[in-house]
Amino acid sequence: MGPRGLVAELLLLLALGAAKSGPSAPLRRYTPDWPSLDSRPLPAWFDEAKFGVFVHWGVFSVPAWGSEWFWWHWKGTKLPQYQSFMKENYPPGFSYGDFGPQFTARFFHPDSWADLFKAAGAKYVVLTTKHHEGFTNWPSPVSWNWNSQDVGPHRDLVGELEAAVRKRNIRYGLYHSLLEWFHPLYLLDKKNGFKTQHFVHAKTMPELYDLVNRYKPDLIWSDGEWESPDTYWNSTGFLSWLYNDSPVKDTVVVNDRWGQNCSCHHGGYYNCQDKFKPETLPDHKWEMCTSIDKLSWGYRRNMVITDVADESTIISELVQTVSLGGNYLLNIGPTKDGLIVPIFQERLLAVGKWLSVSGEAIYASKPWRVQFEKNTTTVWYTSKGSAVYAIFLSWPKHGILSLKSPKSSSTTQVTMLGVQNNLKWSKDPDESLLVYLPQLPPSALPVQFAWTLKLTGVK
Amino acid sequence: MGPRGLVAELLLLLALGAAKSGPSAPLRRYTPDWPSLDSRPLPAWFDEAKFGVFVHWGVFSVPAWGSEWFWWHWKGTKLPQYQSFMKENYPPGFSYGDFGPQFTARFFHPDSWADLFKAAGAKYVVLTTKHHEGFTNWPSPVSWNWNSQDVGPHRDLVGELEAAVRKRNIRYGLYHSLLEWFHPLYLLDKKNGFKTQHFVHAKTMPELYDLVNRYKPDLIWSDGEWESPDTYWNSTGFLSWLYNDSPVKDTVVVNDRWGQNCSCHHGGYYNCQDKFKPETLPDHKWEMCTSIDKLSWGYRRNMVITDVADESTIISELVQTVSLGGNYLLNIGPTKDGLIVPIFQERLLAVGKWLSVSGEAIYASKPWRVQFEKNTTTVWYTSKGSAVYAIFLSWPKHGILSLKSPKSSSTTQVTMLGVQNNLKWSKDPDESLLVYLPQLPPSALPVQFAWTLKLTGVK
Amino acid sequence: MGPRGLVAELLLLLALGAAKSGPSAPLRRYTPDWPSLDSRPLPAWFDEAKFGVFVHWGVFSVPAWGSEWFWWHWKGTKLPQYQSFMKENYPPGFSYGDFGPQFTARFFHPDSWADLFKAAGAKYVVLTTKHHEGFTNWPSPVSWNWNSQDVGPHRDLVGELEAAVRKRNIRYGLYHSLLEWFHPLYLLDKKNGFKTQHFVHAKTMPELYDLVNRYKPDLIWSDGEWESPDTYWNSTGFLSWLYNDSPVKDTVVVNDRWGQNCSCHHGGYYNCQDKFKPETLPDHKWEMCTSIDKLSWGYRRNMVITDVADESTIISELVQTVSLGGNYLLNIGPTKDGLIVPIFQERLLAVGKWLSVSGEAIYASKPWRVQFEKNTTTVWYTSKGSAVYAIFLSWPKHGILSLKSPKSSSTTQVTMLGVQNNLKWSKDPDESLLVYLPQLPPSALPVQFAWTLKLTGVK
Amino acid sequence: MGPRGLVAELLLLLALGAAKSGPSAPLRRYTPDWPSLDSRPLPAWFDEAKFGVFVHWGVFSVPAWGSEWFWWHWKGTKLPQYQSFMKENYPPGFSYGDFGPQFTARFFHPDSWADLFKAAGAKYVVLTTKHHEGFTNWPSPVSWNWNSQDVGPHRDLVGELEAAVRKRNIRYGLYHSLLEWFHPLYLLDKKNGFKTQHFVHAKTMPELYDLVNRYKPDLIWSDGEWESPDTYWNSTGFLSWLYNDSPVKDTVVVNDRWGQNCSCHHGGYYNCQDKFKPETLPDHKWEMCTSIDKLSWGYRRNMVITDVADESTIISELVQTVSLGGNYLLNIGPTKDGLIVPIFQERLLAVGKWLSVSGEAIYASKPWRVQFEKNTTTVWYTSKGSAVYAIFLSWPKHGILSLKSPKSSSTTQVTMLGVQNNLKWSKDPDESLLVYLPQLPPSALPVQFAWTLKLTGVK
Repeated sequence: MGPRGLVAELLLLLALGAAKSGPSAPLRRYTPDWPSLDSRPLPAWFDEAKFGVFVHWGVFSVPAWGSEWFWWHWKGTKLPQYQSFMKENYPPGFSYGDFGPQFTARFFHPDSWADLFKAAGAKYVVLTTKHHEGFTNWPSPVSWNWNSQDVGPHRDLVGELEAAVRKRNIRYGLYHSLLEWFHPLYLLDKKNGFKTQHFVHAKTMPELYDLVNRYKPDLIWSDGEWESPDTYWNSTGFLSWLYNDSPVKDTVVVNDRWGQNCSCHHGGYYNCQDKFKPETLPDHKWEMCTSIDKLSWGYRRNMVITDVADESTIISELVQTVSLGGNYLLNIGPTKDGLIVPIFQERLLAVGKWLSVSGEAIYASKPWRVQFEKNTTTVWYTSKGSAVYAIFLSWPKHGILSLKSPKSSSTTQVTMLGVQNNLKWSKDPDESLLVYLPQLPPSALPVQFAWTLKLTGVK
Repeated sequence: MGPRGLVAELLLLLALGAAKSGPSAPLRRYTPDWPSLDSRPLPAWFDEAKFGVFVHWGVFSVPAWGSEWFWWHWKGTKLPQYQSFMKENYPPGFSYGDFGPQFTARFFHPDSWADLFKAAGAKYVVLTTKHHEGFTNWPSPVSWNWNSQDVGPHRDLVGELEAAVRKRNIRYGLYHSLLEWFHPLYLLDKKNGFKTQHFVHAKTMPELYDLVNRYKPDLIWSDGEWESPDTYWNSTGFLSWLYNDSPVKDTVVVNDRWGQNCSCHHGGYYNCQDKFKPETLPDHKWEMCTSIDKLSWGYRRNMVITDVADESTIISELVQTVSLGGNYLLNIGPTKDGLIVPIFQERLLAVGKWLSVSGEAIYASKPWRVQFEKNTTTVWYTSKGSAVYAIFLSWPKHGILSLKSPKSSSTTQVTMLGVQNNLKWSKDPDESLLVYLPQLPPSALPVQFAWTLKLTGVK
Repeated sequence: MGPRGLVAELLLLLALGAAKSGPSAPLRRYTPDWPSLDSRPLPAWFDEAKFGVFVHWGVFSVPAWGSEWFWWHWKGTKLPQYQSFMKENYPPGFSYGDFGPQFTARFFHPDSWADLFKAAGAKYVVLTTKHHEGFTNWPSPVSWNWNSQDVGPHRDLVGELEAAVRKRNIRYGLYHSLLEWFHPLYLLDKKNGFKTQHFVHAKTMPELYDLVNRYKPDLIWSDGEWESPDTYWNSTGFLSWLYNDSPVKDTVVVNDRWGQNCSCHHGGYYNCQDKFKPETLPDHKWEMCTSIDKLSWGYRRNMVITDVADESTIISELVQTVSLGGNYLLNIGPTKDGLIVPIFQERLLAVGKWLSVSGEAIYASKPWRVQFEKNTTTVWYTSKGSAVYAIFLSWPKHGILSLKSPKSSSTTQVTMLGVQNNLKWSKDPDESLLVYLPQLPPSALPVQFAWTLKLTGVK
Repeated sequence: MGPRGLVAELLLLLALGAAKSGPSAPLRRYTPDWPSLDSRPLPAWFDEAKFGVFVHWGVFSVPAWGSEWFWWHWKGTKLPQYQSFMKENYPPGFSYGDFGPQFTARFFHPDSWADLFKAAGAKYVVLTTKHHEGFTNWPSPVSWNWNSQDVGPHRDLVGELEAAVRKRNIRYGLYHSLLEWFHPLYLLDKKNGFKTQHFVHAKTMPELYDLVNRYKPDLIWSDGEWESPDTYWNSTGFLSWLYNDSPVKDTVVVNDRWGQNCSCHHGGYYNCQDKFKPETLPDHKWEMCTSIDKLSWGYRRNMVITDVADESTIISELVQTVSLGGNYLLNIGPTKDGLIVPIFQERLLAVGKWLSVSGEAIYASKPWRVQFEKNTTTVWYTSKGSAVYAIFLSWPKHGILSLKSPKSSSTTQVTMLGVQNNLKWSKDPDESLLVYLPQLPPSALPVQFAWTLKLTGVK
């Protein structure tokens, strides 16, 4: 019996729990092929959530230099600056594995993190359980001495954050890299043109099953799929189990990175490439993931302030993403000792502050029939029921905002989120709605940028 | 020959250099007593500079926890949380000295620091050459194996920053602690009721002379004086040499911490206590020193965003300080590897951005006859020549600012720094000047807070 | 395809090499059961070798305290002194895995080791490729980041020593522990009453095959078998492959630790328990393994001289072992930096010096019809062809050695190894052979203890 | 008041203690010049002790490579192999000071050491309190953060060993290096042609006084004197205080390294150069110091067994030294964690075992009128009262030892130490004494080499 047996066994253990979930067994079962899997409706919570926080944490947080691709740049593509970095700072022969014990996580307080994410207005949190380096942030039984329990933190990071996040009614997602750059079994399979699956059976699949069974995630954020087809990864087999029989079959959401040519075509919602942003409204639920540190997902000490996205950029992106039907997943990278540095705290709290005023136009909203005002990128629309929200990113010169898309009626009313009274409006010769913005000193405005008008009685 | 001899020798070495400075020898010599020393006029550059950056860096940046008083809290007052911190994170018996080699400064690029300080608008920079821990950030010959050349960075930190700062025409100040908490000779003197001066002769005075001779500082920021009288420290002797014979005799500025009961009474400009802020205009030049991290001067990993002063607070303090005739010295603590974290960069750059618009009202300004508008703390005055500057911290509700103190005349003109056209104004029945502020969208304002009106033709 | 597939593949790779070895394919094939496997004749080299050096090296060489069972005593049985050791010397939470990077092997010069083993007279060397801790001293593809290439030495220790040892015509043996105390898959199997074989398929068997294919060992010194039956370990399957199809099928020798109740009953030669010493001549080839450090096999810093076997004890044991038909495998534990400390060098060289005189009576010898003189343990016999060797461990008081077992004849001649001339002898009334030992000052004797008489013409 | 003041103060502290010693004040006082100091009789205990153990321990025990001159070879003469060693094993920029925290002494049990020294037969022990590296093994108040209390061991090594040694009635000596290779004040004095004495006043003299006052040593083993005259070092001043007023004035012994050209001419007993061995009986008490590791005094990991003096060499040297009127000071270097490795234990215990039989001929013996038998170096004489001891290093071929120097008489008796009965002797035609040695098997001899005959009734 090989690792398949292990999986079988784990499934067996799971049976009891699953049995408990009672008579609500699904009538319909998915088959391990894309037509069937793609036909599954996306659980509703995800589209309603809109905003999540992404967390990249791992051994790469130890050198904390360059990016979370440190190992690859150093030993894969052998970039000169990484060679120099190692040469200048470590004794000869120092290996990536030697970083492990320095990943201490000693100041990691999951409740502090979760408080911050809550204050940021995040409805879900996605943590790297294992990045391409292969180090697992939980005690994986098939990653001995290369996981956060055996080496470094000596803690179950995935489990600790889970508890803290759930306590605050935030959904919990798990990032998982299918590939591991330097795993010898992966390299063997690669050498074999991916006609063997040593790595899949011994490592990546047992771990995915283990993650689901242990932490019952709301979301699986798959990555590292690009070098080989989904048939190599056994992705459809996994997903059919996940949708049919797993403990999270009714609620779990997945993304689209499950094999070469899969991204943007199959799976749950679409990420397409990193930081992907469509120009028009897509017909499939999608998510934009991006990072406060514009040059890295993992923490790096050499981040300077010009690399850090500013508040208005972040909020603008969030607005545009939601207008276009997407979710916005904003990344931070904690330090090796488990801290989220103040600049990231500040950005996240700025989003939270904005959402505390403008969240009505964001959470559980739907794209409107128009996403943004023609010939400009400064006015974006969302909708909820009969209300239409126009979010404008730039305050018009003379305090009058012209909206061309909404058709006003006699019942039309306009308010600004965070401002008490209705706003005056009129109709322009060219049928535009002209809204007279309140004349307030800067400090009296409800937000500093991206102000939201709520329109009712418009079409 | 004892350390006095060393000093003598160093003075000798200095002779050549001093000789070069030519025939400008002062006619008048200061005697080593306060009446004489206090009579020296403060070199003009200091009052004109107004804004400086303070840098606390040392071995305390290694534990980087609590504050730069780490050692004292741990081994002096033995605070329980410091005991626990050490117990939880280090093997038994680990000493403060053992931190030394971990103070790597490996990413310390003095030019990057100096660029940042320049962009912040700082006219002077003050670096801790030696804090109460006694570790010297330069190769002091009397601090063997407890200095930055022998242990840790293996670099002359004081010297490297000097070169970078001077290249940008920024004045260079040296913070120096007279006492060292745990120096055995200091402890011996203390035990002797400060009737012996082993420590002064062997350590603190040779180092002060050495600093002056090596780095020719524009400012000496003395500290650590409070446990013993200036007679113990030999302060007046040092200052008379500094003013009469040192290579910086014509330009150097010092503060007021030279012995018990000295602060706020003797020396150069006054710091009085840390973060001191007078309520009315003092009759002696002073400086407010404060820290962006409200709870620490040295870098600490456990700083959270609520501990960080925000931009408007910092700029408000700067404005108030200058209005009251003070200089504003704003502190940051770099990390053990020589980085200034992004949140500090952001704050410093925000000051710089504000000064690029409003600097005219700050640099080389003088207090006006009124410092701030009665019954409010939101309008502050400075002056330069015949111009009066009114800096208002809060935008008035209806866009009309009422100034009660300036007497307008027929030639009165009002502009806002950063805005092209003159502003309209009128006279109120109660003689106030009513200024009609420009009606601009928030993003079109020259600064986000603390707007400056320039008044000419007023009294 | 699971790990079995991996093995298959490795075997495939091997095919080419095996094919080259030509038409000498064995006529007979062994079946995977003990009767068949036990019937294989032991390759002759092993019995002729007599003396080998055992090397215990691994991550346990880092704490280097207690013994190579450090991890078990600390985390398995939780002995108080190990708990204290960790508490006193490491920060809280430090794990065994964290020791990995400190296993530097930086002064490991395999040629120096091999020179020493050669000078010791060793005909074979056995190295721990993996002890119960699971750390592999070669780049095992199924022990990622817990092997000597990825972590610590960054070298293939097994391979480097192989090259050095073979260059000197010394046979090379590989110690391999079947079990790994804390491997999660092993713990899972154990919990399952060894009815599952996750660990065997994923770890221990792939590694054994890998070791054979890579290093073509002359000897496999199996260990760690005691907790489960050979059927769990797949031992007979492995051995039948080893004897039928492996690249070392004609030369390889194995011991007897292949499963519960296996030791002393099945396999190649017998070790029985550690340091086993029979009292009479066994009817099966055996080996006594023992350690110069009487209390540990791995290096430990707390070894004191009274724990170190002295030269005469070692040589006595060697003599007795060979007389009783055994091989003598003498252990040393190198330091974490790859050094063999002088006391071990001294002992090994003492054996070598003794063997340079007495080796004739040891190497390739056979037990004689009598193993040792009745009623004493100071005279031991070996034989080679018609020669009989009597090795006496204690010099008789008056210089006359009485041998009761050999029957003299008219052609009987007696010499002492290392002494030029024949010795005088006579016959005692009770038929003993009385040998008149040479009267030499101590320093002129060929060896300091365990002198060898060579008898010819005796029965 | 400079460091002189410190010394004064320390002297003052001493006054009470000195006062206690009562009315035994010396009638005669020594003046600070060599004629006076050299005239002081050597306290008797030293000549009687004959055998001591020397201990070299310091930060050099951390790299533990090359020798205790590591720092000098690396940074002084810059030997290529030391450059390479650092480059290969440490990150760039690593300094000698950075080794400090790794000098843990964690297994240093002074009682174990003292037990070993006692078992070795040592009558005195000399420890390096400070080698040329300047690191002090006690909490020197003028070596802050470069001493064993502040950094590394966090213990008073000198004091702990003192207590253990005295408990066993072993005399305690302190090695002290006058110079410190890289002390900045020493380098300054050197640059000044030793016309300044910054270093002497600030460091080396205060420390010597401190050592005497704290530990009341029986012996001061001065070193590091060679670069400058005794006038630079203030040696005669120190010695006159030591002989007149120190708490050890009646018992203390010193050697001869107190300034350029001083060694072998002035001071207490003579060491002359390291490992000095005269060929004939000197007319001044002397000591041969030598090291078990022939190539280093400090512990080094790269010591191999051929570098280790063997037992017979050590005992031969001891015998010869004592015959020639010297003391024998045998060195070992403990490891950075405070262990004395087994090979050193073995050698020391071998000396102890030999002395337990032969000590009668060594301790408190006097040179005889002949030191060694003409034309040979294998027979050496000592004497005590009317007994003459002939120690022969090589057992004569036929068991008859010929002694040419002693004149026998009718009362002449000969015994061998460790053997019960008198030995037979006769007179040779050439007047030699022929001694018939006992015919014993090697193991029955009292010692393995260097057998001692005790002759009475000879001249």
